[in-house]
Amino acid sequence: MLEQLKQEVYEANLELPIRGLIKYTWGNASAFDTEQQLFVIKPSGVDYDTMSPEDMVVCNLNCEVVEGTLKPSSDMPTHAALYKKFHDIGSIVHTHSPWATTWSQSGLDVPAMGTTHADTFYGSIPCARYLNTEEIDRDYEYETGNVIIETFEKRGLKHWEVPAVLLHGHAPFVWGKDCKEAVMNAVVLEEVCKMNIFTRQINPFAETLPQSILDKHYQRKHGVNAYYGQK
Amino acid sequence: MLEQLKQEVYEANLELPIRGLIKYTWGNASAFDTEQQLFVIKPSGVDYDTMSPEDMVVCNLNCEVVEGTLKPSSDMPTHAALYKKFHDIGSIVHTHSPWATTWSQSGLDVPAMGTTHADTFYGSIPCARYLNTEEIDRDYEYETGNVIIETFEKRGLKHWEVPAVLLHGHAPFVWGKDCKEAVMNAVVLEEVCKMNIFTRQINPFAETLPQSILDKHYQRKHGVNAYYGQK
Amino acid sequence: MLEQLKQEVYEANLELPIRGLIKYTWGNASAFDTEQQLFVIKPSGVDYDTMSPEDMVVCNLNCEVVEGTLKPSSDMPTHAALYKKFHDIGSIVHTHSPWATTWSQSGLDVPAMGTTHADTFYGSIPCARYLNTEEIDRDYEYETGNVIIETFEKRGLKHWEVPAVLLHGHAPFVWGKDCKEAVMNAVVLEEVCKMNIFTRQINPFAETLPQSILDKHYQRKHGVNAYYGQK
Amino acid sequence: MLEQLKQEVYEANLELPIRGLIKYTWGNASAFDTEQQLFVIKPSGVDYDTMSPEDMVVCNLNCEVVEGTLKPSSDMPTHAALYKKFHDIGSIVHTHSPWATTWSQSGLDVPAMGTTHADTFYGSIPCARYLNTEEIDRDYEYETGNVIIETFEKRGLKHWEVPAVLLHGHAPFVWGKDCKEAVMNAVVLEEVCKMNIFTRQINPFAETLPQSILDKHYQRKHGVNAYYGQK
Repeated sequence: MLEQLKQEVYEANLELPIRGLIKYTWGNASAFDTEQQLFVIKPSGVDYDTMSPEDMVVCNLNCEVVEGTLKPSSDMPTHAALYKKFHDIGSIVHTHSPWATTWSQSGLDVPAMGTTHADTFYGSIPCARYLNTEEIDRDYEYETGNVIIETFEKRGLKHWEVPAVLLHGHAPFVWGKDCKEAVMNAVVLEEVCKMNIFTRQINPFAETLPQSILDKHYQRKHGVNAYYGQK
Repeated sequence: MLEQLKQEVYEANLELPIRGLIKYTWGNASAFDTEQQLFVIKPSGVDYDTMSPEDMVVCNLNCEVVEGTLKPSSDMPTHAALYKKFHDIGSIVHTHSPWATTWSQSGLDVPAMGTTHADTFYGSIPCARYLNTEEIDRDYEYETGNVIIETFEKRGLKHWEVPAVLLHGHAPFVWGKDCKEAVMNAVVLEEVCKMNIFTRQINPFAETLPQSILDKHYQRKHGVNAYYGQK
Repeated sequence: MLEQLKQEVYEANLELPIRGLIKYTWGNASAFDTEQQLFVIKPSGVDYDTMSPEDMVVCNLNCEVVEGTLKPSSDMPTHAALYKKFHDIGSIVHTHSPWATTWSQSGLDVPAMGTTHADTFYGSIPCARYLNTEEIDRDYEYETGNVIIETFEKRGLKHWEVPAVLLHGHAPFVWGKDCKEAVMNAVVLEEVCKMNIFTRQINPFAETLPQSILDKHYQRKHGVNAYYGQK
Repeated sequence: MLEQLKQEVYEANLELPIRGLIKYTWGNASAFDTEQQLFVIKPSGVDYDTMSPEDMVVCNLNCEVVEGTLKPSSDMPTHAALYKKFHDIGSIVHTHSPWATTWSQSGLDVPAMGTTHADTFYGSIPCARYLNTEEIDRDYEYETGNVIIETFEKRGLKHWEVPAVLLHGHAPFVWGKDCKEAVMNAVVLEEVCKMNIFTRQINPFAETLPQSILDKHYQRKHGVNAYYGQK
């Protein structure tokens, strides 16, 4: 079942180390099938050299394995929680990409300091709080998804305008309409995290991007009158 | 038309990710034909894997597409504005190369701190101001070109002596007599931006290069008595 | 003798430059055979291009060469000291990987600031003291092993929970149950060293990881109820 | 003439970009023939893609071209000055490797902070002063060599114990007994420059390496009782 989605998820996972977003198996990509309300995710801790598209695991939104002989990624319940709540997401990517993970460890949001950011993210990328002991004990991975959702709700953020989040002390989760876009958004996040660190080192008083330029760049790519690309 | 220039522009665009200056399609290279007063530029948002030389778009200095089935790069009007004003430029390259973009986000000029800089750029590389709301609304990309020109005029800079500019909050534009030189200048800019950040971290009181050494290095490569290379 | 172990040690040494952990011959990997109480280590200063599995040297825990025509790595006695004391170690890797070596030069422990760290190391990675003049003169490489052991004993650390150490002014030693794990642990160490530097630059008051999350991540991979991977 | 040396010099120059020490043609390697008192150096500004061993230029210690149809590297007189004074040098390499160049721009010496440094350099690597206007006008490249020699004499440094120098505002010159060693020394320099920057960022009060460990590591590789490698 879902053979094409398995192929896409397989390729997205292989793309993560090629793009410099992970080493070894420190990440996972998944994709969602809206009709069947199922998602495909990579198996846990399998070497990418020997992994094949058929090894991908199919799960439902109750965190149950629907098809597959291997155990799914241990972060699978986080994916389930996000697909359940963020209806129009087609793919989720979790990485330990070094600069975004560094930023996650700092506990701070990533401010929009340039148009590289504004071309993809409409405003700051939030850093979600640590899970508390109770949440960790109850269901760590599923509660991680809940903390992400809480972060977006409390701040009034739209997940399609800001398709990424940092987990304090952990690493990013990133999403998009399909695997290709989710991986690209993870690359953008990594790049802006790297650049923002050094921007404030060159000039400790460097401003964030003016709202008018943030609007312009985000809208020319994602607004109703977008004119970037061949669409 | 302009088949050879299309080939050169195509190759220059492919060179950008190879040189580490861009990821995905975050940049564009163009080249100008002085006789016909036309320039060739890459199409907007097309994957480099599937792009071919014939996909390049031919435009005139009024920002009109003269030949080509694809939409030109959304930054095309910036290129047009620069070719119109900076008569002897043969090629323009726009990248989001990380260190130059970081410097752009800082809002500061890049001072000449070493001979790597002086071999290509005769003095500081300016950081142009943000566009104001009126300019953004009127014609963002064309006005970007105008702000670059204003920067060079106000500061009395010669565009052939300082073949690059940073846009505050955005990224660099770089030029040269042909595609090869424009790409090389973008590489030099990236390298000096990276090195200058850390120079002042080693020694916060590090000086800029003495004028006599700046003169010597720039002139031995670009002066009337230049003796670098096989010319 | 120990042909399979020689092959593994050979491959682990070749993996070090590929993983960006060393340049030239600035490192060494070894593996231990519990039954025979012998270990296999790479020869000293041999080009990796011309090195073959048969060049690996077999040594015993008294630092004697048991088989091999080449001289073993000059750091061989450090490996011997560690295998003698840390009974269940299957492989040791010594690198000059840049970020871990930078941290070694700083003389500070590497604190656990994120889950990338907690997935492999249960708490801070210690930085062992300089050897004193007497130790250097007596038997530099063997005493290096003793200082590592002293560090773990004095601090009450378990070597299987924290499979790495930094040597002040030198570089890391890392271990694991086999070559593959030892190399992977060296990669994790390198990555967390890089990320921790910049975490405190983004936010000088960034906290270390809460104990509850450190526990959760370490245990889900290494505890009795571990559920990561396909085991 | 000197066909084998030409081949070695050719290969050393090609190795510079592969080792990440230069981009484009921003560097040069040469080698000296003691018997004939001649040296072979790369031509100026020739693309590495089209360069061949026969393009190497043979020069004497009076800075005259003895054989070759191409102009030698513009830095040729610096090489001549150093071969004339530092009798036992077999090869010189000049690069703009980014971290060593950054350190050159800072105007500071590179202190020995770890054994990676001590394995190759016996103490700090000096940063030579700027050339003054008179020296620049007289013979910039030859006087650059003289300033390097002056630096070693004034500080009582032995060029075989510290086979590298930084030129303030410029970049490093590095040497060795042959091309292979000179390139390797340039790689070590680049690595320690990178690591030292961040060592003092982790711990602003990080010490330099104790003299006893500096002695031990330098001597075990280069002393009369050296025991590193297969010699």
